[in-house]
Amino acid sequence: MNKPVIILVKPQLAENIGATARAMLNCGLADLRLVAPKQEFPHERANAMSVGAFDKMPPVEVFDSLEGACHDITTVYATTARKRDMVKPVMHASSAMDDLFKRAQSGEKTAILFGGERAGLDNKDISFADILITIPLNPEFSSLNLAQAVLLVSYEWSKHTFDAPDEDINYKDSIPASGEKTAELYSRLESELAAHKFFRTPEMRPTMMNNIRSMFSRMQMTEQETKTFHGIISCLTGKKGNTSQ
Amino acid sequence: MNKPVIILVKPQLAENIGATARAMLNCGLADLRLVAPKQEFPHERANAMSVGAFDKMPPVEVFDSLEGACHDITTVYATTARKRDMVKPVMHASSAMDDLFKRAQSGEKTAILFGGERAGLDNKDISFADILITIPLNPEFSSLNLAQAVLLVSYEWSKHTFDAPDEDINYKDSIPASGEKTAELYSRLESELAAHKFFRTPEMRPTMMNNIRSMFSRMQMTEQETKTFHGIISCLTGKKGNTSQ
Repeated sequence: MNKPVIILVKPQLAENIGATARAMLNCGLADLRLVAPKQEFPHERANAMSVGAFDKMPPVEVFDSLEGACHDITTVYATTARKRDMVKPVMHASSAMDDLFKRAQSGEKTAILFGGERAGLDNKDISFADILITIPLNPEFSSLNLAQAVLLVSYEWSKHTFDAPDEDINYKDSIPASGEKTAELYSRLESELAAHKFFRTPEMRPTMMNNIRSMFSRMQMTEQETKTFHGIISCLTGKKGNTSQ
Repeated sequence: MNKPVIILVKPQLAENIGATARAMLNCGLADLRLVAPKQEFPHERANAMSVGAFDKMPPVEVFDSLEGACHDITTVYATTARKRDMVKPVMHASSAMDDLFKRAQSGEKTAILFGGERAGLDNKDISFADILITIPLNPEFSSLNLAQAVLLVSYEWSKHTFDAPDEDINYKDSIPASGEKTAELYSRLESELAAHKFFRTPEMRPTMMNNIRSMFSRMQMTEQETKTFHGIISCLTGKKGNTSQ
């Protein structure tokens, strides 16, 4: 699959090229092209900000013109902060990356354009784009650093590659407690509570125990945690020290 | 609605506190708390990196302990890069912010913890959390700058606030061309092509015109663009200069 190429058009600061490389590689992207960077490239400050990303990427390609940088690209996406008068489809970064992913899967070679720090992409740059990408942010404070804009769009791309399912409870190597173990625990807790006159009346006892079981069951204890809990009961009732941990 | 509080636990560099504030405000978040920052705060370098964000936020609160910073919080989310052995639910940043948004809507006061630059959150910090947040990134290059981690999580939050629908074509003030206008254009194009012997045989003419109409209809022209196109035809056929723009 062709991953998208990131094209920075007339970036001003070498630092931001390095930070862009870091953000790209964080998200699994590695092809970076520059159009007429203001500072020479390669650049020491770019290397520092990349924290090693350049070493793990193909060489960055530098072009004089956007036409040159797009010579092998079939679909061009352009990020814009300001509203444009141009008649183009406009997509949220998220749906744009869905769209790009589909095209990339079918073998298309795609690119995403980002403008320089001061003024972004100009109208001529944007006329090369097939699809505009918008990142809806706080309208009262929307100016993103260049590398941060690259990060957000690359992150939307990365969801197609590095997605991880939610885990209700992250048990790892622990064993979830069986019904038997928790029933044993609740039963012991109930006996101890009864012995310590916790239940004001015998009639209230079943309801109070229901509430207590409900409360502790939300913990979804591991087997080890039932032992810890037994230890706590032993300790609080003065039967013995907490030896279960 | 209670928006989430961002809590930086033992941040090392004042710059990153400033960059965090900028990223938060970009995404519409404004409540920032610090636990035992290594450098004094407020700090000149934090102000510089915030590009004015601090001026538009309530004062940043500084606490000695995480317990103090969480005193009024009901649900705590913690971001972790490394795998943890703790038995907690783990959610992708995206679903975690869906979850947080629902809680915030029902009046809960939530917070999101981020650890310091070097080591992240320690196990004690994480034991205060109800839900762990993971940001799946390139496993071979996953180290995010602190402010970038805040940006990604805040961005997932911001989707609930600043979302913007995709626009198939961004017509703005332009008028989409009517069927009449495009039919007129295609009809003129066909006449001119015929006059210039474009169609090799009369039999091929209908199919070729179908293809041409299909091709140009994908442009979804505006009314102005049909005029531009007429101008192009006039110009190419030598009838007159392009006066339609």
